Amino acid sequence: MKTVVACIDDIYEDLELWYPVIRMREANIKVEIAGPEAGKTYHAKHGYPCKADRSFKDLDAKSIDGLLIPGGFAPDKMRRDQKLLELVRALHAANKPIAFICHGGWVPISAGILKGKKATGTTAIKDDLENAGAIWKDEPLVIDGNLISSRTPVDLHLFGKAIVESLNPGFV
Amino acid sequence: MKTVVACIDDIYEDLELWYPVIRMREANIKVEIAGPEAGKTYHAKHGYPCKADRSFKDLDAKSIDGLLIPGGFAPDKMRRDQKLLELVRALHAANKPIAFICHGGWVPISAGILKGKKATGTTAIKDDLENAGAIWKDEPLVIDGNLISSRTPVDLHLFGKAIVESLNPGFV
Repeated sequence: MKTVVACIDDIYEDLELWYPVIRMREANIKVEIAGPEAGKTYHAKHGYPCKADRSFKDLDAKSIDGLLIPGGFAPDKMRRDQKLLELVRALHAANKPIAFICHGGWVPISAGILKGKKATGTTAIKDDLENAGAIWKDEPLVIDGNLISSRTPVDLHLFGKAIVESLNPGFV
Repeated sequence: MKTVVACIDDIYEDLELWYPVIRMREANIKVEIAGPEAGKTYHAKHGYPCKADRSFKDLDAKSIDGLLIPGGFAPDKMRRDQKLLELVRALHAANKPIAFICHGGWVPISAGILKGKKATGTTAIKDDLENAGAIWKDEPLVIDGNLISSRTPVDLHLFGKAIVESLNPGFV
């Protein structure tokens, strides 16, 4: 069974976390929720609560098969966590799937892994993605190697499926 | 392409609406959102907004292939809408999928279609389901013919898949 970590903090985007999380569980992928503090409950942009199973600082890239970074304004906080950025770099170096949507792209920007990579997100961070060296695509789903990105909640039906396919090829 | 109507009113349960809705869209099923008033935006139990595409009173069972009834306290209002209850009875008579979760079971109870049928929901409405003649099951997913039911958001990974399978057999 594959294990994916989904990152949260306050003001995560409700559906950008939960649709991929439940979709992965449907496909028998184990999902663990990580936040700044294990055991603490964080609240989404529209209010949906979510308790962190683990803390960012306790994550080990070797025992993780993929990462999900939802949008909302949570990534504005996540990108300041050096342990999380180290994890993103380690997962990327190991060619493991890293999925980000909407404002989620701020985290791989700060991890410095996007140079020359195709990516998308909310138009609000188009300039940030390009300034980080990414090749911006205005498309609902962009896949470049292990990097999977989408723009907004409207793209979630494609984003969730792509994550599952990247982890369990042939089993959707 | 199949067309499914998802029912909303204020205080619908955020994920019980959105997970199955996006999951159906992933499977190329057309989903229309219906509420008391077309064009009006309703807010979920935790706050997620959703605009109704159509009004309950304008729905026609002949052009609908299935129905989704999320929980939250929205079903407490929906069950008073005689046009919606007529639609539920017509879809049931046509053996079309009717999916309900959590407090969603209040609607098929008031439509009077559960006698002798296996069903589940939140334990809060176990007595209501049994008094309506249903056979209560404490299981995450219960399927009895065209009736698909689950208990809470924790069951959504099974509920969404079952709805898609009922509409597109063999294509999940």
